Amino acid sequence: MPSSQKPDASDYSAVEVVELHGHIIDSLLLPKILDEILSRGGIYELEHMDIGVLPNDPSYAKVKVLAKTTAILEEILETIHDHGATPISQEDATVEAADMDGAFPEAFYSTTNHHTQVRINGKWTDVQDQEMDCGITMDTGGEPRCIPMLDVRKGLPIVVGHRGIRVRAGETSQRKGLFEFMSSPVSSEKPKGVTVREIAGAMREARAKNQKILAVLGPAVVHTGGVEHLTAMIELGFIQVIFAGNALATHDIEQSFFGTSLGISMDKGLPTEEGHEHHLRAINKIRRAGGIKPAVEKGILKSGIMHDCVTHNIPYVLGGSVRDDGPLTDVITDTIQAQELMRKHVRDNVGFCLMVATALHSIATGNLLPARVKVACIDINPATVTKLMDRGSTQTVGIVTDVEPFLRELVTELRKDVAV
Amino acid sequence: MPSSQKPDASDYSAVEVVELHGHIIDSLLLPKILDEILSRGGIYELEHMDIGVLPNDPSYAKVKVLAKTTAILEEILETIHDHGATPISQEDATVEAADMDGAFPEAFYSTTNHHTQVRINGKWTDVQDQEMDCGITMDTGGEPRCIPMLDVRKGLPIVVGHRGIRVRAGETSQRKGLFEFMSSPVSSEKPKGVTVREIAGAMREARAKNQKILAVLGPAVVHTGGVEHLTAMIELGFIQVIFAGNALATHDIEQSFFGTSLGISMDKGLPTEEGHEHHLRAINKIRRAGGIKPAVEKGILKSGIMHDCVTHNIPYVLGGSVRDDGPLTDVITDTIQAQELMRKHVRDNVGFCLMVATALHSIATGNLLPARVKVACIDINPATVTKLMDRGSTQTVGIVTDVEPFLRELVTELRKDVAV
Amino acid sequence: MPSSQKPDASDYSAVEVVELHGHIIDSLLLPKILDEILSRGGIYELEHMDIGVLPNDPSYAKVKVLAKTTAILEEILETIHDHGATPISQEDATVEAADMDGAFPEAFYSTTNHHTQVRINGKWTDVQDQEMDCGITMDTGGEPRCIPMLDVRKGLPIVVGHRGIRVRAGETSQRKGLFEFMSSPVSSEKPKGVTVREIAGAMREARAKNQKILAVLGPAVVHTGGVEHLTAMIELGFIQVIFAGNALATHDIEQSFFGTSLGISMDKGLPTEEGHEHHLRAINKIRRAGGIKPAVEKGILKSGIMHDCVTHNIPYVLGGSVRDDGPLTDVITDTIQAQELMRKHVRDNVGFCLMVATALHSIATGNLLPARVKVACIDINPATVTKLMDRGSTQTVGIVTDVEPFLRELVTELRKDVAV
Amino acid sequence: MPSSQKPDASDYSAVEVVELHGHIIDSLLLPKILDEILSRGGIYELEHMDIGVLPNDPSYAKVKVLAKTTAILEEILETIHDHGATPISQEDATVEAADMDGAFPEAFYSTTNHHTQVRINGKWTDVQDQEMDCGITMDTGGEPRCIPMLDVRKGLPIVVGHRGIRVRAGETSQRKGLFEFMSSPVSSEKPKGVTVREIAGAMREARAKNQKILAVLGPAVVHTGGVEHLTAMIELGFIQVIFAGNALATHDIEQSFFGTSLGISMDKGLPTEEGHEHHLRAINKIRRAGGIKPAVEKGILKSGIMHDCVTHNIPYVLGGSVRDDGPLTDVITDTIQAQELMRKHVRDNVGFCLMVATALHSIATGNLLPARVKVACIDINPATVTKLMDRGSTQTVGIVTDVEPFLRELVTELRKDVAV
Repeated sequence: MPSSQKPDASDYSAVEVVELHGHIIDSLLLPKILDEILSRGGIYELEHMDIGVLPNDPSYAKVKVLAKTTAILEEILETIHDHGATPISQEDATVEAADMDGAFPEAFYSTTNHHTQVRINGKWTDVQDQEMDCGITMDTGGEPRCIPMLDVRKGLPIVVGHRGIRVRAGETSQRKGLFEFMSSPVSSEKPKGVTVREIAGAMREARAKNQKILAVLGPAVVHTGGVEHLTAMIELGFIQVIFAGNALATHDIEQSFFGTSLGISMDKGLPTEEGHEHHLRAINKIRRAGGIKPAVEKGILKSGIMHDCVTHNIPYVLGGSVRDDGPLTDVITDTIQAQELMRKHVRDNVGFCLMVATALHSIATGNLLPARVKVACIDINPATVTKLMDRGSTQTVGIVTDVEPFLRELVTELRKDVAV
Repeated sequence: MPSSQKPDASDYSAVEVVELHGHIIDSLLLPKILDEILSRGGIYELEHMDIGVLPNDPSYAKVKVLAKTTAILEEILETIHDHGATPISQEDATVEAADMDGAFPEAFYSTTNHHTQVRINGKWTDVQDQEMDCGITMDTGGEPRCIPMLDVRKGLPIVVGHRGIRVRAGETSQRKGLFEFMSSPVSSEKPKGVTVREIAGAMREARAKNQKILAVLGPAVVHTGGVEHLTAMIELGFIQVIFAGNALATHDIEQSFFGTSLGISMDKGLPTEEGHEHHLRAINKIRRAGGIKPAVEKGILKSGIMHDCVTHNIPYVLGGSVRDDGPLTDVITDTIQAQELMRKHVRDNVGFCLMVATALHSIATGNLLPARVKVACIDINPATVTKLMDRGSTQTVGIVTDVEPFLRELVTELRKDVAV
Repeated sequence: MPSSQKPDASDYSAVEVVELHGHIIDSLLLPKILDEILSRGGIYELEHMDIGVLPNDPSYAKVKVLAKTTAILEEILETIHDHGATPISQEDATVEAADMDGAFPEAFYSTTNHHTQVRINGKWTDVQDQEMDCGITMDTGGEPRCIPMLDVRKGLPIVVGHRGIRVRAGETSQRKGLFEFMSSPVSSEKPKGVTVREIAGAMREARAKNQKILAVLGPAVVHTGGVEHLTAMIELGFIQVIFAGNALATHDIEQSFFGTSLGISMDKGLPTEEGHEHHLRAINKIRRAGGIKPAVEKGILKSGIMHDCVTHNIPYVLGGSVRDDGPLTDVITDTIQAQELMRKHVRDNVGFCLMVATALHSIATGNLLPARVKVACIDINPATVTKLMDRGSTQTVGIVTDVEPFLRELVTELRKDVAV
Repeated sequence: MPSSQKPDASDYSAVEVVELHGHIIDSLLLPKILDEILSRGGIYELEHMDIGVLPNDPSYAKVKVLAKTTAILEEILETIHDHGATPISQEDATVEAADMDGAFPEAFYSTTNHHTQVRINGKWTDVQDQEMDCGITMDTGGEPRCIPMLDVRKGLPIVVGHRGIRVRAGETSQRKGLFEFMSSPVSSEKPKGVTVREIAGAMREARAKNQKILAVLGPAVVHTGGVEHLTAMIELGFIQVIFAGNALATHDIEQSFFGTSLGISMDKGLPTEEGHEHHLRAINKIRRAGGIKPAVEKGILKSGIMHDCVTHNIPYVLGGSVRDDGPLTDVITDTIQAQELMRKHVRDNVGFCLMVATALHSIATGNLLPARVKVACIDINPATVTKLMDRGSTQTVGIVTDVEPFLRELVTELRKDVAV
């Protein structure tokens, strides 16, 4: 069978030598890169390897990549570049002026969310505002910076190709806790206690460093009875900014307005059908008041997550979607404007992100976050968690669980901290 | 289009008049029966109808069923019979002697789990030991009784056909709580608090009537950290009998034996991979001791669900399965013997059944329970809950949630009761 | 126990008599209404009932609703009104002038997606542009018409309260096929052949009536290899309009552009990781060309769903979302504008809607469709199907299955038709 | 923070040097082992490392493992031993006589499903009948052999401890296709065509080597309409043995017996409710005939999977479960007997295993299969696939898809082969 034959290296005329630094073995980067080379039709020779003797020591590998055509080689190099494999031939990055507004030159370098450096005049410089699926421009001070496609203006310098760019994917130090170890969702069959404690710990750590905690929330937070836990987290100082949509805000406000009718249903022990009228009447009331803040100030809206955001000066971005009823006055119906505002908040010192019960807003936020921001994603639907982690990166911990009990435990854990 | 034409009743020469009693409108029985008639190729005329004026008043309907052939009519009658539609022509049931061991006569009447009556000598008598998918025999005292296929012995009297048999499907009184209203699983998006309270209430009610509570448990009870909640329920007197498999018992015992190793992992905040050795060593230890009870008595097994079953005299049935490792000495490897023992327990005054995180044992138990026993089925996988409810009946409340937090809340709720 | 006691009618001083017309028994409307009355704290008396003798005959019921307070009674009446229970006291609808832009008067009537009539000057008139979660205005000709909240302008007449409005929920004629019978998703355990045939039949029927077929598509259509099936359906004339998002269009275009790279992976039999660069490069290319249509005209985009939309003059709405990369030039980033355009298409003679693998756009479309438009929703995730059906109505058939094989079978079935 | 401090090696007094051979980098074994050491409280030093220069070259690593106590060290060694890390100090295995029937000595070595060798008199010998969760005995010829716990008899020699035992986990050669690359389920969002081709290829390969193909089947094979595909596979010679339960066989037979009634429902385009009577009557008929084979011979059972097994001399094991109705005469109700028979078949030259729509029987079979047998597991429920892969090993390809369309494509692919 041909597959067991040794490939004839003489067929593989396109060659490039790449190098990798960091925790490339225990972070699985080296194996991943070797896989990518083989699966895309290349072969490799490991030219040199220094393995860290102790767990904390970084490793180093020099890998010769061979392919049958230059096109295949380029594709391989592009792919493994995202995992931190940098061509050894050290050249400066190539910069090209944008030839039109709102689009990159064809050969633009497409970013990951990992720490990236660009070589300019022989010097490696960190890219600012690291964000995936962007290009890199050079700002007026000559510093490289991520730029979304839409923000490109004709004449702006844009980095093209992938020479002179290196991704520091293997730089994270020795893995020692949940956030370093997990590469797959925490199954619903695993004990949750430790997970909750780890997340509470990461939140405390972020706050201790004066970093902000971002909460991304879906309507199931309200449906499952989690409003009180979110308001407790706001009160305790563990939420500094909220991203959500029309639905979360509407159902939160609906619960505040129509408590009595829910009250009746609670008496009878019946999960009420979500009355389609109530949510529309809630939106109508807010629109009549001129928005959430005016409704709070006029004493119309008296409790709930959105209410507490207003009274605690927690900024929120309610991003619009095509399925919105109403929507609430505060919803930003233009999705690009919403993204811009989300981006502004994300870049303003966010150190931890809690995503609860929303695929749409979680993926939107994941697109904007640099890989160094820890993320915890909670959903009862394993598909949501998997989808996020597929698009996300090693910094995400996905937990398949019921939302309300999880939030209750998290608040209990966070309170402990406050008590101490 | 032909479907909009009025069917010509003269084509429908096979005719039978059936009647229905009870809460046939609000329990959806009448609509279901009319659906069945149409979908199986028949037509109907509603000959007479008395609707209860007040909610508690029973209703009555007389329906003429017409079909093109006797075969189709018979099939329709068989199907709607299970929903309580009894042919109006009152005849005694037909009884035939079994012609061989271990199988019914071809024409045997196949039971449902609803209250059923058989007409003998002009008198309607309740069927004893009501259980689905059985036949009906007449015991020595002349009373009708459900009998499994395997227990048939040559010569035993077996009820055949469906004349002289009536199913009291519409008899449940006015629906007024969770157990009466729910016909679909409690979604993971619904608040769980009320549900937990309803279940706790149903458990208290069963205990107040001196009925037994049966717990059917899967290994995720242990995996998710639920052991302490189960032992609390045993302690509080809310579990009188347990059905499970080798896995639940093994993991419970493994946790008791190898606490220290789990301890280390807890320190480090890491969900440990379930060591395949530990569960095998746990089984080996129990086999060496001669079983769970001897292991408890010799001081080898000191805690956990199985331990507490022994110390509190809670009987358990560990039903074998082809995927069992070991198995533990206490596992009944013959599935028919296990069923027999389960049947014996189910018939011994069980009034409530809590099914947690096991499709296999839950469906097995559901097969044995009469429709009057309330069932709560808890699983994080909606497919499991749906599958059980498809096979089960209106008495089952299915809850899609994470197991451990649910059990924690249930215990908190049950303790309240004890305090009062 | 108090619950078994007969409620004392003298406590129930708030009274209203309602009536129901149509197929109220086999469509389960009457049972649902009785349930609602009881579960919201009311009681009822069935004052009069005429049951259709034959399956096609409509029925009639007169129900006295009693509650302890007027507030409870009003809530019950509001709820059951949506199911077609109209107060018997015939009054004209009340109309009030809007007191501000962009919001209804507090007491506005909130619409369902069912056929609705308004009583004006003693005459019942059909509401135009039926859509759920809207209000009703009177257009200049005096005809009632659904109006979204955002479109309200100060001074516009708005229907308030629920007197003089009736919902014809029970009007659908005798149920005789998949679309009439299904009230729960088609389980993944059921045979799919018949379902596919039924859907193909409904699509042929719509086309035979010159109605348009609307396809609502998620990116998994492309991921699973379904592009060729969609283009076949366009070719065969079974798609007249498409709703989707940036992702579907991008991945469709990416597949067209980077077929070679996918080709390589196919050779090696490896499901390639979705390269994050490719989709961004695809978007960039389209933006550089000035949009999808220019890219087709310039010969840049040569195949795929979006290409075929351009060459076959199939209009499409690409609704923006906060998670969009790029986005493509054609994406309508303002969600309200996108909704408006979707609404315009929906009202333009759409007779059938096929929703595939997208929760977001499917729910958005479901919000706009009147109940008379048949909908088939296909997704491998049961949660998506359930969520849509919860919000949708009896006209939706939900099918839990793998997308690509389903589409392949559907095309095979549709071709048969063409052959004949 | 202490975690960033370098651990003081002097605290780590318990030391052992282990070595690893094979494809330890691209098979992720080395990273996994380093992880395990750290997560269980140890530290490591990489003493020596030879990395294969070319993809096919094996690698070698010598790792010093340090722990604070001997107990922790032992636990680490036990865990990493299963991944192929063997203590460098070469000693013979220790053998101890069993002290009782039906249980191992406390210190028994617990097997994995990987190729294992035992050192006896200085010579490494392959373990026969490799199977996970067993012990190792020495047969009369002095060869090591896996033995289930239940088969232990007092006095039998049993290997204890883990010295003198090595696991060849890293031996699989260069990964080059689906079966070598996949470590996670094939998502429902991935194209299935290639997957089907790979599986067909593996089945052809097994047949070309005269190996047997084992099919493990759940009832959804019948429910979804897959009977004809299975019988085609039997006809084409791609199934040599079947494992299933009472449900698969019963529903297959039910479909054969009651085709007409299904026929009617097909005419009307309605997915019929699975009649509970039909399956019971099917079982009864088979019991009356004396089993499946007699029923075929007497002309009672005329088609279906079970029928074709009889006419093609395909052996089957129907393993009993506590949820079985009836059961069929052929069901082996004792689960230990069923396991024994399954074990006998598995060891008789099975080279490929296809698991479809059953968690119970798939896990049972996975327990018995050595890691060298390729496995494809198909289920629409991702939880089932994940559960199997968690327990299984690198040889399993899990595919989340709808069963019937998958089987149809597989048969189409297998027929191509036959044509060529």
